[in-house]
Amino acid sequence: MRYSKMLLPTLRETPSEAEVISHQFMLRAGMIRKVAAGIYDVLPMGLRVLRKVETIVREEMNRAGAQEVLMPIVQPAELWQESGRWHQYGPELLRITDRHGREFCFGPTAEEVITNIVRRDVSSYRQLPLNLYQIHTKFRDEIRPRFGLMRGREFIMKDAYSFDADEPGAEASYEAMRQAYHRIFQRCGLKFRAVEADSGNIGGSFSSEFMVLADTGEDAIASCDKSRYAANVEKAAARAPEPVEPPATLAPLTMVDTPARKSIQEVSDFLNVPAEQTIKTLIYQADNEVVAALVRGDDEINEIKLKNHLGAGVLFLADDKTTEKVTNAPLGFAGPVGLKDVRILADLRVRYVFDAVVGANSADAHYTGANLDRDYRVDEFVDLRLVRAGDPSPGDPEGVLRVDRGIEVGHIFKLGTKYSEAMGCTVLNDQGEELPVIMGCYGIGIGRTAAAAIEQNHDDGGIIWPMPIAPYQVLLVTLNAKDEVLEYADKLYDDLIAAGVEVLYDDRDERAGVKFNDADLLGVPLRLTVGKKGLAEGIVELKQRRIPGKDFEKVATDKLIERVRELIDEGMGTGVEA
Amino acid sequence: MRYSKMLLPTLRETPSEAEVISHQFMLRAGMIRKVAAGIYDVLPMGLRVLRKVETIVREEMNRAGAQEVLMPIVQPAELWQESGRWHQYGPELLRITDRHGREFCFGPTAEEVITNIVRRDVSSYRQLPLNLYQIHTKFRDEIRPRFGLMRGREFIMKDAYSFDADEPGAEASYEAMRQAYHRIFQRCGLKFRAVEADSGNIGGSFSSEFMVLADTGEDAIASCDKSRYAANVEKAAARAPEPVEPPATLAPLTMVDTPARKSIQEVSDFLNVPAEQTIKTLIYQADNEVVAALVRGDDEINEIKLKNHLGAGVLFLADDKTTEKVTNAPLGFAGPVGLKDVRILADLRVRYVFDAVVGANSADAHYTGANLDRDYRVDEFVDLRLVRAGDPSPGDPEGVLRVDRGIEVGHIFKLGTKYSEAMGCTVLNDQGEELPVIMGCYGIGIGRTAAAAIEQNHDDGGIIWPMPIAPYQVLLVTLNAKDEVLEYADKLYDDLIAAGVEVLYDDRDERAGVKFNDADLLGVPLRLTVGKKGLAEGIVELKQRRIPGKDFEKVATDKLIERVRELIDEGMGTGVEA
Repeated sequence: MRYSKMLLPTLRETPSEAEVISHQFMLRAGMIRKVAAGIYDVLPMGLRVLRKVETIVREEMNRAGAQEVLMPIVQPAELWQESGRWHQYGPELLRITDRHGREFCFGPTAEEVITNIVRRDVSSYRQLPLNLYQIHTKFRDEIRPRFGLMRGREFIMKDAYSFDADEPGAEASYEAMRQAYHRIFQRCGLKFRAVEADSGNIGGSFSSEFMVLADTGEDAIASCDKSRYAANVEKAAARAPEPVEPPATLAPLTMVDTPARKSIQEVSDFLNVPAEQTIKTLIYQADNEVVAALVRGDDEINEIKLKNHLGAGVLFLADDKTTEKVTNAPLGFAGPVGLKDVRILADLRVRYVFDAVVGANSADAHYTGANLDRDYRVDEFVDLRLVRAGDPSPGDPEGVLRVDRGIEVGHIFKLGTKYSEAMGCTVLNDQGEELPVIMGCYGIGIGRTAAAAIEQNHDDGGIIWPMPIAPYQVLLVTLNAKDEVLEYADKLYDDLIAAGVEVLYDDRDERAGVKFNDADLLGVPLRLTVGKKGLAEGIVELKQRRIPGKDFEKVATDKLIERVRELIDEGMGTGVEA
Repeated sequence: MRYSKMLLPTLRETPSEAEVISHQFMLRAGMIRKVAAGIYDVLPMGLRVLRKVETIVREEMNRAGAQEVLMPIVQPAELWQESGRWHQYGPELLRITDRHGREFCFGPTAEEVITNIVRRDVSSYRQLPLNLYQIHTKFRDEIRPRFGLMRGREFIMKDAYSFDADEPGAEASYEAMRQAYHRIFQRCGLKFRAVEADSGNIGGSFSSEFMVLADTGEDAIASCDKSRYAANVEKAAARAPEPVEPPATLAPLTMVDTPARKSIQEVSDFLNVPAEQTIKTLIYQADNEVVAALVRGDDEINEIKLKNHLGAGVLFLADDKTTEKVTNAPLGFAGPVGLKDVRILADLRVRYVFDAVVGANSADAHYTGANLDRDYRVDEFVDLRLVRAGDPSPGDPEGVLRVDRGIEVGHIFKLGTKYSEAMGCTVLNDQGEELPVIMGCYGIGIGRTAAAAIEQNHDDGGIIWPMPIAPYQVLLVTLNAKDEVLEYADKLYDDLIAAGVEVLYDDRDERAGVKFNDADLLGVPLRLTVGKKGLAEGIVELKQRRIPGKDFEKVATDKLIERVRELIDEGMGTGVEA
């Protein structure tokens, strides 16, 4: 493609709308433009990257035996009512009413539609296994869309669904997808890690996320330094604490004035007690129940653990009014002592906090010397805290957790029979018994993968595309192109295309500075610069975008295409599980 | 692909929901399944065909210099308000409200969004021409969706938009697309015709439709037998009638009783007057105006001509109440005599109807001997009638029109500055003047093209795919497959794949009758049947789906792949403009 003909509007300034690197560079490199909150145009440069990711995904899905289908975007409410998700999904589900007043949604995912396909046309275990996938547009009406393609409302997702007649089959289908995902991200040229994850509102018994590692990632990943254990921090289990003996003498429960001290930090400073000796009391609304959750003062609560433990559909911090009603105190002074008519759950570590400081359920007051059972009750001890770097690992008795940042680009789920039971998707087994099929589902965010690749691969000047998903493999730049420079560059452009190389030819009449800045911004892996001086020496300058600095190779014109092909081959499929 | 592993649920019976051939065969051949009215799942066999059409379209769009982009499906109301279409489009536009109460629509087309891209990032004539396209899902909330993918609500369309700084440029962009469309339908292996068409609610000054010819087509195409003139009947001009002298003596205007005779047929039979001597009077609501339209009794009115002549946004037959108010008579007896306070338009042929029979604006009565000017007035004579086969052609003084049936699969429009003016999409020309860009837009229905291919190419047994868009090129069938038959077929399957042939391998344990019926239904162009007897002779049976009857070639096993490749090459790109 000739740059002069292409809709490739690069920007010098970082648009104020963009908070994260990938969003900034996608806008600046003319890949995307905003249409509305979380809704984007994908311009030619951006689409080339998405298509490359899609192609890799499609090839690996097909290789794994999955079959491509296309399901409607506009999905009838009836199917979502059958699964129960019409009511569970909440306002992220974009609901639509057609001209006849019938209800639909813009599909955020397609478990219902695919289950409907299989229950209609599959009736015997002999027709299984099946793995059906599509690469299609989805919509999730995020309350605060941001970060460009990283967390848009409208986005392209590959979603696959497996159907098996029995548990070993389902296990094999899941494993085939797990391996396919490894190949996909490896072929995309990314550093990634597979981690245990929460299943969220997809449901099911087990799930793994595929994370592209990047310091700017919005997810935190805990990994064990001695084992293969790795999990999203929102899912990562805390190793059960070692029992600690209580002190020989327990302090008496004493109410103390803590005027206007509400946070753990304030209280702990004011009373000169370490945060580990305080207990945080949080009041939650879980579906229709109000519960109190206790964690040690220096710990953070993991709301997903709490939600999953309660089996709640929705869980959020109770509003001020509810909290004040339950605790009889203004916000910030809740505590477990004397708390009635509410279930109290506590993190495992709370058991070993002795002579604790807790809220007194009274304005501007805390208790010191609060002790379990003597002064307050706990109905259930549960693992409720967010793990932190340095925590003992649940994966190995000697292991310690480290925490890295990552971006979720894929998520695979063991669904079990959640949808097939709700929707009557059954097959006859070899005994003639009618059994619900066992499902799995498997997603990859196409635009997210492209964005994550930028988060992982960039410098101050712009993007550094991994070769397999680069919009072009070669950027051919001319300087002061006329006469023999122009003639040579035009011919080189044709020769590269003839050799199967994907070339963007910067034939614009611009200064070298402008062209090189755009080259850095666009991030095409190989830059060839044709100039009069070089040609006189019989060379072309070859600069690899991924090598920092201004160094370049001088490549003899007669070796040029060979060298380019060599570097392209080298750059393919260089991703690693890290 | 092995049939036994594929989700390919063929049906023996024609589902009652399907009225047209393509819909019936797409359901029966396991290509699609209905999800809701006008909304379908596309199963693997169907998707393979859509992807082939998409690939041909994409290659030819790229070859014509167009650049692929991806625009959002969910489009903000603001852009549609700027163009004025938010109010004009009517209930076919599926409107959506997001969780924050903001209005959007599910894009049925993308003129607004693309114009917004260009006005944002293009400012000089030097950045033009541009032609941007996408292949993406659209939604039109048809009041009565039917015919499967032929007229679905959710469908895949290729939509392209050209932008030029001046009229010659716009002309060249349109011409490039016209040629690309010819190549596309030719490469799809279809018989098609380009015809003049109405521009509908896209707007613009001129448009052509690309019609796939098929007896079952829902469009009628008029073509001249002496020139290249061809037009959709809804657009086709009638040649102005030759003047006819009135008779020497005009009959007197006479009211006659015509009890309960309302239709032209009834009145003409009752009064024993030929239909050509009667005049039909139709009362229309055109936006806020009521108008009367007259056509000769044996002609049909062309409402699109009337609507376009009036420049009306909407036009429909007035309701009974309005008609009765305007004519002072019950429905069925409207006539021009004494008609007041309403504009009267008449078709050109009405001028030469003398001593006409017309409604008397009185219950159960008509006039005979009605004559223009003496008895009634006409405010305007306009070409208002639907042309018919045998009509004089407007394309050649000696020409006669024939009428064929066709299916619209593509539509190209000269848009002019309708959207660029409304939305402020301007560029500076070489004089530094700011001018609105001149646009064109160009659509192809991907699913419609597949459906039209079936309407054109089928027999009682099923589909007869043109090679270029066939889901597979070869169907490999085994009979009583075991031992050496199985071994040979497995190897042949691998060899065909290795030779780059797209094979569906019917490895099912089914009777020959079932397999051959499915083969006819699926319509794969080449069927290879491997059996014990043939192998003993050293041959495989090769049956071409497009050749009627049961004849097949016996091809020596060592010549088989060569012969298959030859037939595949022969079958590529065999479409013609007919």
